Amino acid sequence: MVGLPTNREDGAVSEYYDIFIKDCQVLEEDGRGFRLVPAAIAIHNGRLAALGRGLSESDFPAAEVIAGAGLIAMPGLINCHVHGAMTLFRGLADDLPLMTWLEQHIFPAEARFVSEEMVYWCTKLAAAEMLLSGTTTAADAYFHMAGATRAYAESGMRAILGQGVVDFPAPGVPDPGKNIEVAARFVDDFPASSLLQPALFAHSPYTCSAETLVAARRLARDREVPFFIHLAETQGEQALIGTGAMSPAAYLDSLAILDDGVVAIHGVWLTEADLDLLARRGCRLVTCPESNMKLAVGVAPVAAMLARSIPVGLGTDGCASNNDLDLFGEMGSCAKLAKVHTLRPEVLPAHEVLAMATSRGAACLGLAEVGRLTQGMKADLVLVNSRSPRLTPLYGPDLLVYGARGSDVDTVIVDGRLLVRHGELLSMDVAEIMTEVRRLATSVGGSHDA
Amino acid sequence: MVGLPTNREDGAVSEYYDIFIKDCQVLEEDGRGFRLVPAAIAIHNGRLAALGRGLSESDFPAAEVIAGAGLIAMPGLINCHVHGAMTLFRGLADDLPLMTWLEQHIFPAEARFVSEEMVYWCTKLAAAEMLLSGTTTAADAYFHMAGATRAYAESGMRAILGQGVVDFPAPGVPDPGKNIEVAARFVDDFPASSLLQPALFAHSPYTCSAETLVAARRLARDREVPFFIHLAETQGEQALIGTGAMSPAAYLDSLAILDDGVVAIHGVWLTEADLDLLARRGCRLVTCPESNMKLAVGVAPVAAMLARSIPVGLGTDGCASNNDLDLFGEMGSCAKLAKVHTLRPEVLPAHEVLAMATSRGAACLGLAEVGRLTQGMKADLVLVNSRSPRLTPLYGPDLLVYGARGSDVDTVIVDGRLLVRHGELLSMDVAEIMTEVRRLATSVGGSHDA
Repeated sequence: MVGLPTNREDGAVSEYYDIFIKDCQVLEEDGRGFRLVPAAIAIHNGRLAALGRGLSESDFPAAEVIAGAGLIAMPGLINCHVHGAMTLFRGLADDLPLMTWLEQHIFPAEARFVSEEMVYWCTKLAAAEMLLSGTTTAADAYFHMAGATRAYAESGMRAILGQGVVDFPAPGVPDPGKNIEVAARFVDDFPASSLLQPALFAHSPYTCSAETLVAARRLARDREVPFFIHLAETQGEQALIGTGAMSPAAYLDSLAILDDGVVAIHGVWLTEADLDLLARRGCRLVTCPESNMKLAVGVAPVAAMLARSIPVGLGTDGCASNNDLDLFGEMGSCAKLAKVHTLRPEVLPAHEVLAMATSRGAACLGLAEVGRLTQGMKADLVLVNSRSPRLTPLYGPDLLVYGARGSDVDTVIVDGRLLVRHGELLSMDVAEIMTEVRRLATSVGGSHDA
Repeated sequence: MVGLPTNREDGAVSEYYDIFIKDCQVLEEDGRGFRLVPAAIAIHNGRLAALGRGLSESDFPAAEVIAGAGLIAMPGLINCHVHGAMTLFRGLADDLPLMTWLEQHIFPAEARFVSEEMVYWCTKLAAAEMLLSGTTTAADAYFHMAGATRAYAESGMRAILGQGVVDFPAPGVPDPGKNIEVAARFVDDFPASSLLQPALFAHSPYTCSAETLVAARRLARDREVPFFIHLAETQGEQALIGTGAMSPAAYLDSLAILDDGVVAIHGVWLTEADLDLLARRGCRLVTCPESNMKLAVGVAPVAAMLARSIPVGLGTDGCASNNDLDLFGEMGSCAKLAKVHTLRPEVLPAHEVLAMATSRGAACLGLAEVGRLTQGMKADLVLVNSRSPRLTPLYGPDLLVYGARGSDVDTVIVDGRLLVRHGELLSMDVAEIMTEVRRLATSVGGSHDA
């Protein structure tokens, strides 16, 4: 799996490696946290073939050599929950309660404007924004996911694509009676890909009936794909479901839905008993602090999740409720929100959040080969430019959480392929994407092109 | 004050205007909020000579013409509380309680490493970071403020510089018995400047005795300079002061300190009675949400401040507790924190926070001629590049709060002078500043130059 340099038949040294990054600082993780280590990295065939101090450029002949001075190499960030196509609704309706926002603005706009073509273009915009800000993997959940699949394929990102299931007419699923059938077709028709995989996204316990939840879970188990679901996002969710004294988590368990194939999103109002249950069942959790803040739904008990060793990932949620997809900013918000909520500054230290956006996020999504920069792993990494006022001085890796932002990302590599260089996206035409999305936005609510 | 084009004696049209910005969107504010309006802007002699729809380049011959397509012109942001020189301690000690952080890390580091030379270089770094992220005015509060004055003068920023007063040995004030004398000398020796003005910064009611507070307030009144003070930052402050049942605000009032020359910072634990008192006395307030989050001191009652028509500004605080000086990010955090804290998403809508960072911030600092883009005002403005994925689509000005970040700033003009162009600082050598600060940081705790 990990190659070594070979000589060509004529005796000359061939450019065996794809990329060699010299003289950078590598973000290393061990049991106690993270540290920055001066090192070089050799990439071959989509993997980290070698990395460490003292690797010499001449020993690792590469097609592309990147001068790493001033750059921090870190694992590509992992966005464990995003509705990519909702870039179209970014800033369409701010400062409103979740249910007003959903029922009077987002759902009607989705009914009118969401098509496979819209999902294709608006997911491309999301992928562009994520790549440019250092995210290399996204778990996307929406409708018309064939459009999203095309978009991610063009972007070069790694992604898990969850086809939405709800019990009302939805984009691409006018007859909710066929929601499971549509989802099954999406999974069964999914194109072979080393970077993309299909999944199911049952929207929530309050938008899916018990029958639908059970059928969707059965389908995901049968096809062996991940099962995503919003859970305990708002305080009122239990009343919406109408389960009496039973919590939303307990309700899902009563339907035999919870196991280690489930990724539950938000979990703001999970009780201690719920957390114990989810830990026992092996579920994974995703927290979306900025969306939870903006929609004012509450503060997720992230420290209590981690205390139970639940794999917790970080998500931006859709950028209609965020309003950006910058996981660097999300890391800072996550750490700071936990502190001010508990009035304890030692809660959720920087390194815990950095893990949530990298190695722990990978565990949350069941991806064994990304999230950490060690030999043999997939070459999903970003180079952060530390030579800016905002990152000066640099005492240690915590500043990646409290100081760095997506705009500090210089280079992005996914699966060994260079997708962003000096802040420019190489895999897609950003200007074209913005033009198309602005055109779509004109129908939605009028978009300024300042 | 506002000029008109004149012809030279030879009959040719002279380049009467300094800068003409064409085809941009201008952020306009009226009683109901903000909106984006297509317009052009002519700058002459440090002021907005003309702005509006339909101004023609030929009618406003200018030395410099800026193509504004894709750019949003907005008032330069106003950072109402920063300890600029603390860039040196950025990320030095994260995730610690305020008093541990202050007493075991920050105060000892300050005692060892703060000199006028350090303040000069590290304030230059802060000014560079602020300008590059769209801040044109800062209210800086620290020690060795002669060093900070030199730094801001070189930067071209507008600034109010508060010389620190505390009752223990401080940088440049080894004998606390001379703290008022040192502050008086700073004010009296302040160099004449149209952009900079001196002020006093009495650190807090728990680090200054009643005598010191009274003397400092008397000095500020006598010299007619603003008086800054940290107030009600932590829940434990009242116990620290030892005023029994009297709140910190009531205590200051008992010393006859509170009036409209006072800018009180933080105000996290102000009670309703305190807010009534501060409003009655005409005091101004500053909130620093990201610092309050990171140090876990609590959530300031910003909506309650605004409900009393108190002029409330936004501050980053020192970047040892933030850890950046990006007021765009601070706006987003401010709005979102207020929502999640109250579980009410309509609290502190985007336009209120945008005002806090612009016009209301100007009112907080008593600056009548900045914070708003209208004819005759000082030409302190920034141009934000809206043609990025993160700001697409653009339905309205709220996205400046929820989406824009300092890195979206393309151009910065202060007092009619171009200081940042296409993201490059023109007034200072950023590489030199970073090298000097990294050198200083090596003594403090070892700094990576990644």
